[in-house]
Amino acid sequence: MTRGENDPIRVGVLGAHGQMGTQVVKAVTAAPDLTVAAAIDSDGALSELTDAGAEVVVDFTRPNVVMDNLRFATEHGIHAVVGTTGFTEERLDTLREWLRPHPELGVLIAPNFALGAVLAMRFAVQAARYYESVEIVELHHNRKADAPSGTAAHTAALIGQARREAGLKPGADATTSELDGARGALVEDVRVHSVRLPGLVAHEEILFGAPGETLTVRHDSLDRVSFMPGVLVGVREVLRRPGLTVGLENVLDL
Amino acid sequence: MTRGENDPIRVGVLGAHGQMGTQVVKAVTAAPDLTVAAAIDSDGALSELTDAGAEVVVDFTRPNVVMDNLRFATEHGIHAVVGTTGFTEERLDTLREWLRPHPELGVLIAPNFALGAVLAMRFAVQAARYYESVEIVELHHNRKADAPSGTAAHTAALIGQARREAGLKPGADATTSELDGARGALVEDVRVHSVRLPGLVAHEEILFGAPGETLTVRHDSLDRVSFMPGVLVGVREVLRRPGLTVGLENVLDL
Amino acid sequence: MTRGENDPIRVGVLGAHGQMGTQVVKAVTAAPDLTVAAAIDSDGALSELTDAGAEVVVDFTRPNVVMDNLRFATEHGIHAVVGTTGFTEERLDTLREWLRPHPELGVLIAPNFALGAVLAMRFAVQAARYYESVEIVELHHNRKADAPSGTAAHTAALIGQARREAGLKPGADATTSELDGARGALVEDVRVHSVRLPGLVAHEEILFGAPGETLTVRHDSLDRVSFMPGVLVGVREVLRRPGLTVGLENVLDL
Amino acid sequence: MTRGENDPIRVGVLGAHGQMGTQVVKAVTAAPDLTVAAAIDSDGALSELTDAGAEVVVDFTRPNVVMDNLRFATEHGIHAVVGTTGFTEERLDTLREWLRPHPELGVLIAPNFALGAVLAMRFAVQAARYYESVEIVELHHNRKADAPSGTAAHTAALIGQARREAGLKPGADATTSELDGARGALVEDVRVHSVRLPGLVAHEEILFGAPGETLTVRHDSLDRVSFMPGVLVGVREVLRRPGLTVGLENVLDL
Repeated sequence: MTRGENDPIRVGVLGAHGQMGTQVVKAVTAAPDLTVAAAIDSDGALSELTDAGAEVVVDFTRPNVVMDNLRFATEHGIHAVVGTTGFTEERLDTLREWLRPHPELGVLIAPNFALGAVLAMRFAVQAARYYESVEIVELHHNRKADAPSGTAAHTAALIGQARREAGLKPGADATTSELDGARGALVEDVRVHSVRLPGLVAHEEILFGAPGETLTVRHDSLDRVSFMPGVLVGVREVLRRPGLTVGLENVLDL
Repeated sequence: MTRGENDPIRVGVLGAHGQMGTQVVKAVTAAPDLTVAAAIDSDGALSELTDAGAEVVVDFTRPNVVMDNLRFATEHGIHAVVGTTGFTEERLDTLREWLRPHPELGVLIAPNFALGAVLAMRFAVQAARYYESVEIVELHHNRKADAPSGTAAHTAALIGQARREAGLKPGADATTSELDGARGALVEDVRVHSVRLPGLVAHEEILFGAPGETLTVRHDSLDRVSFMPGVLVGVREVLRRPGLTVGLENVLDL
Repeated sequence: MTRGENDPIRVGVLGAHGQMGTQVVKAVTAAPDLTVAAAIDSDGALSELTDAGAEVVVDFTRPNVVMDNLRFATEHGIHAVVGTTGFTEERLDTLREWLRPHPELGVLIAPNFALGAVLAMRFAVQAARYYESVEIVELHHNRKADAPSGTAAHTAALIGQARREAGLKPGADATTSELDGARGALVEDVRVHSVRLPGLVAHEEILFGAPGETLTVRHDSLDRVSFMPGVLVGVREVLRRPGLTVGLENVLDL
Repeated sequence: MTRGENDPIRVGVLGAHGQMGTQVVKAVTAAPDLTVAAAIDSDGALSELTDAGAEVVVDFTRPNVVMDNLRFATEHGIHAVVGTTGFTEERLDTLREWLRPHPELGVLIAPNFALGAVLAMRFAVQAARYYESVEIVELHHNRKADAPSGTAAHTAALIGQARREAGLKPGADATTSELDGARGALVEDVRVHSVRLPGLVAHEEILFGAPGETLTVRHDSLDRVSFMPGVLVGVREVLRRPGLTVGLENVLDL
């Protein structure tokens, strides 16, 4: 099935009845340049994708089925945008193997589709080399199990790497008397502080400091609907980015 | 020496050449209802206060001389506003003793003259009983030795006391996996996080959370000139508040 | 019907199927010291209140029925907590008239039950007299019709009144070249700025400034569930506050 | 005069006794890879630069002398980093003319040396195309004459341009009832709000919004010492960037 220049991109949605999948169907339906070719949940068959001529599949399913889905997609020449978690290095290698016979095919795997989170991380890395000191404050609802959040820990790790590459030493810190925990957790040489309160949702603040100034990048996430613009960017971009791409930041034009 | 109704209040400044004293002289001079009767530093004599007819003395000196200054003031019927540190319970008892024969005389001792800091603390105590959870983030320049800051620790202690009096239990916290220090230090049942960066000065943020909302009180202090309005309020109020008062919050009209 | 000391307060909910009423039923049910005696919607009869022995009625209905509801409640000796809008001075006078023969009865009418919003307003008024300058930034989703928000306009009016009472003149402002609108709207002598963005919900920030320091009070409201603690405080307090009270702030212990 | 690989770069400072020049001398002195070869003020002679073998000159002087300084520098093969204001297109053309016979020589002219301000602007442009709506809140001390600030207006113009290039229409805004000025000033299709308070210094906040999330970039500038890292980056970079460069962002590695 070929598509005319002005025809919408035909999208298949897997996990279509899940919390994310439901949003994806809505968002794709609302986008004038995209159309839902197939919306399939756990009781549906992957063959609906080929029957419907899907060009791209969006997968928000589960770690135990996502590899089967991706094998089907690559074998049938369907690009894929994946938000399902659980991708190990081994799984990524398998995927690369599957993609080898299909050099025109693209697969995008992203742990985070929130454009704001991805941009915040990107800006943090860009700023890192220009500031002697940096700390992160992340704030979440009080039902969260891990502290710091995965996003904050990942951001800190990326900043730490950028600092190392720029030859920066840990920022000066004159603390000699500390009540246990006051100065936060250390990820690389970046202090991370985790606030937990009812009434909060998901917020991250990266603070850079130099004599006489501070630079702050903050992301506030209130609703998973915020992932949709990132998913749509992914769908559009994966068509022209053959091979395996990990991380939404790598298909953004920054 | 008696003062007419429209005459300015006659103020003596001790430690007049110090960092704070210099500002006090400037601020008193600029206030239309006050006048500098005497500006005395360590090489001056306390008798200048009586010679000049000072009604109130402002003392930003040192712990080793402040008690001598206050004995002189109380003996000579001069009210006092004191920002010098080092007041133990014992010293406060001595002061009360000295004030007993002078029931009309007032002494105000304040660890913090920043109106904003005092108001922030006061608001925090007022809000405490209405929120199931609260945390403090304080941010200072990276030359600071203690974490958390004295102000933040004091605020947390006051909030903790208000929570206890209201019968509140520690706010729910689902953290099961914590990187050491991420969740801050505990003062009473209040988490306190200390950020240290060049480019910061002195900032405190108190965050209250309940389902669906948060309330934040933030104080940013950039310059010790910010203590002056509090000192001037103290000078005006001490005249009509006999006895010993500790804490600027107790002379504010809140 | 009399209530034992440890019996829960019997609450009737009017408008029980509406967005607010549904939440009220849930919140009253969850509170150990309260119980839902009757949950009545537009198709129910007010007599259910008396049949069920309701001591307090919570009314989130409509301007066209609320006065009938309140006449019934006062005539039958039931206290009332009212979140319905549309109370004119005339209506309040009528209510006072109805309450006269029942000196033990309390009615609380509140335009805003968000504790955080009420506290923020209260703190703003308390701080107003100590700062030469103040501005408000309120931030809301971009589907809002009015700018500034009612809450921000009301806060500004209260601050303006407190400033007038303290004899404060408008804060200094050196602006000589302004792009139309940059300095916001004037409510009394308080500048108010309205930000409208998708991704925001309802946020208000009151900024006080004096040389060397700023004090900020911020309220973030994400969900109407945040009104429930205020409703419950109202239910408990109205029982011991005879007469008409307007504004939740007047039953808080501040 | 040639420089060994490990020899510090020889820097001449013009306007060395001015507010900025004094800081530049201090900052260059403190940098291990740079040295002050000559510190010249209005009573000094430009020939001191050549006598001292300056490789780069830093010019924080005045519009009426800066062109003479730059003619001297280019004629004598000295690179230049310029913070002096008043550069018209005509002046830039003259400079390009002067540089033509010296293809190895670099001149960097920057209206703003604050790394944080430059980074904030850069991030704003990068994020602009991914968000349907954006507004700017800038906050300054109340002695400022213009609203909005030059930096905020410039940021808004750059964002507006990026939005136009991405084909974005003005963000949705449902405001139908506005108190004059509440929604701020319009620069391109970007709303800009200017807060003026004593106690503030110079702060800029760029808020991007999309359904379910916001992204904020904030720069706080407290002291002109914050310009020094940008000046030092300029000195190091101008040596390897022949020709005329306008704007610090163009020598940063972003």
